[in-house]
Amino acid sequence: MGSVDFKVPGYQFSGISAGIKKDGKRDLGLIYSEVPAQVAGLFTTNTVKAAPVQLNMERIQKGLCQAILINSGNANACTGSRGLRDAKQVSSWVGRRLGIDEELVFPSSTGVIGSPLPTKKIGEAIPELINKLSPEGWMSTVEAMMTTDTFPKIKVETCRIKGKPVKLCGMVKGAGMIRPNLATMLSFLVTDAHIKAPLLQKMLERAAETSYNRVTIDGETSTNDTVLLLANGRAGLSLNRMDRDGEMFQSMLSKVCRNLAESLVKDGEGATKFVEILIRGARGREDAKRAAYAVAHSPLVKTAFFGEDANWGRILCALGHCGARMDPNRIDVFFDKAPIVKNGMGVGARLEEKAGQMIKKKSFKVTIDLHQGKGQFSVLTTDLSLDYVKINASYRS
Amino acid sequence: MGSVDFKVPGYQFSGISAGIKKDGKRDLGLIYSEVPAQVAGLFTTNTVKAAPVQLNMERIQKGLCQAILINSGNANACTGSRGLRDAKQVSSWVGRRLGIDEELVFPSSTGVIGSPLPTKKIGEAIPELINKLSPEGWMSTVEAMMTTDTFPKIKVETCRIKGKPVKLCGMVKGAGMIRPNLATMLSFLVTDAHIKAPLLQKMLERAAETSYNRVTIDGETSTNDTVLLLANGRAGLSLNRMDRDGEMFQSMLSKVCRNLAESLVKDGEGATKFVEILIRGARGREDAKRAAYAVAHSPLVKTAFFGEDANWGRILCALGHCGARMDPNRIDVFFDKAPIVKNGMGVGARLEEKAGQMIKKKSFKVTIDLHQGKGQFSVLTTDLSLDYVKINASYRS
Repeated sequence: MGSVDFKVPGYQFSGISAGIKKDGKRDLGLIYSEVPAQVAGLFTTNTVKAAPVQLNMERIQKGLCQAILINSGNANACTGSRGLRDAKQVSSWVGRRLGIDEELVFPSSTGVIGSPLPTKKIGEAIPELINKLSPEGWMSTVEAMMTTDTFPKIKVETCRIKGKPVKLCGMVKGAGMIRPNLATMLSFLVTDAHIKAPLLQKMLERAAETSYNRVTIDGETSTNDTVLLLANGRAGLSLNRMDRDGEMFQSMLSKVCRNLAESLVKDGEGATKFVEILIRGARGREDAKRAAYAVAHSPLVKTAFFGEDANWGRILCALGHCGARMDPNRIDVFFDKAPIVKNGMGVGARLEEKAGQMIKKKSFKVTIDLHQGKGQFSVLTTDLSLDYVKINASYRS
Repeated sequence: MGSVDFKVPGYQFSGISAGIKKDGKRDLGLIYSEVPAQVAGLFTTNTVKAAPVQLNMERIQKGLCQAILINSGNANACTGSRGLRDAKQVSSWVGRRLGIDEELVFPSSTGVIGSPLPTKKIGEAIPELINKLSPEGWMSTVEAMMTTDTFPKIKVETCRIKGKPVKLCGMVKGAGMIRPNLATMLSFLVTDAHIKAPLLQKMLERAAETSYNRVTIDGETSTNDTVLLLANGRAGLSLNRMDRDGEMFQSMLSKVCRNLAESLVKDGEGATKFVEILIRGARGREDAKRAAYAVAHSPLVKTAFFGEDANWGRILCALGHCGARMDPNRIDVFFDKAPIVKNGMGVGARLEEKAGQMIKKKSFKVTIDLHQGKGQFSVLTTDLSLDYVKINASYRS
């Protein structure tokens, strides 16, 4: 990644170790915009929301954000009224030190649920965190929010709108628990375009629909999931509606979000396979969605992927109990382009063998045609591996 | 089990190897009633139904059954019209050889989906299968239907109604994929009471509601699940309604089914833990059910059980995305009787440590009180272990 320029005009980044993680790795990060930025956000749909999520859902109402304080190692979730006080406390320390309104600081946490936020450690580390802010500091911020992630995930894109270069940089932290409508996923994006919060929000929602909301690892949604998009206007370009220029920005945003979501799945806990499940020919979109998730979440299908076993019976079995309308005798299944099931039955040993080769690849696509209508939906998922169990059985210990 | 008498008057059993399983283990079983018996049945709710299930759902309309032919090693599912022909073929062979109407023979299959039933092997083995029928043959029948099961599961009960001894014997085959509304589970029960099919059906449904429909291992339902209950009347006792005598039989039936369901969970694929999840205080029964399954199916909760990690945050997280109505700040959680969460927060390190000891046991109960109303529901489940993944990644190879 050495040659890619992640700098975006008007933004600074840092990431340090505040001693929250036991292993001494980076665990506190900061994203700072030199001027108050317009902000859009998406938050977990889980009823149990972490304290910082509750706080940000209030703060975002004003449409402005100037700093994002991120910690890993502690989720500040299920921590009651103390958790909310703690989230406010750390953001007010950052605000005071930066000389900005604390309401412009959005705290964000990830890690173990149910322990009080170590505010003392965070407070003591804030001066260093702010001192280290720099336009080149991205990588340290990304590292500071990693938990079981095995590699940092950053994407940057530039486009030219009305003759002006516009930049967008995004980072994401994920690994386990990823599923639609977000999961223990934090994603932060910054651009130097100027886009008012309501339009920015629409754009972010549209981008999420084809990215973050399409990835699933274990069917869980977390208490802390957050996506924030900042637009500080430093490019000297203002986008006010969804005209051709707006669409240009949208397509850059959607592309970055999709790339980030894909890297999220590729780094799914213990994942050895990267699988797209496409349902087509469903009675409607809802049916397609239901069928796609049923297959993507089936532990039997996922363990078969891990074992590189072309056990298509498990796919039909998962489809059959998902509730989508279907005729079992009309279902077709393909592994990449190779047919494996035709009209609900195997295509015969020779062809099945051939299709079975596809799932020996690291990345492949399962296409399922229900022949019921035009409904279509796809999700990205992983296999269920021995390492998934190992990682999650010992996460806290 | 040596001293328990599994014989039930008027029934004979056998189980042999027909060469369907590659390892030469028993794979073909027969249950035979000397007279046509009243029959009740429950079948998979999966839209994709195996051929024998489709056939039995027709045959059971007449309310009579005299023989159950069981094979393991091949599910005869997703085998199209050929599958149905094959199921009829093998049952007609058994009928002819036994000298009974083929419509009184119920075929039942379990094993790999999508391969044609090896009818030739079955046909050649039928004479031996019938020759070996004996009132003491139970164990060989049970063995013939085992797939990844690690031990045979049989229960027998006797009660005295109107001065007459009435016997009930049941067997079950399960392991993976167990979930409510049945799963790759075959269960066959025989009694010498006389109970007409419609009443017998009601009794079986009531028994299933507190047994088979309450166990879940990986959230899957299979194409082949079947429960059949035969009543041949040899005890000389007739039950015609749900009076006190009817209730006596019901309670024996419910007890045997519950015992069988529990043994099913204890033998869940790779299971190291046997966990009851009880939701109470839900707004209604549906909410309680939804919450119970959300916790029981969460791979993160299940891997934490496997790791003996009292990670209650994952339980709250699973609850939070299940859609049941709740206030996160009013949730209480207990491991056996030890509180671990009070009002949505941990009870403190010392008490949490104490509660954490409970999940080091092989068998424990998680009670979750939502404090929203009187809705209650419980399910039995297992952990998600390394062996679960190993077994399912290599099932066919």
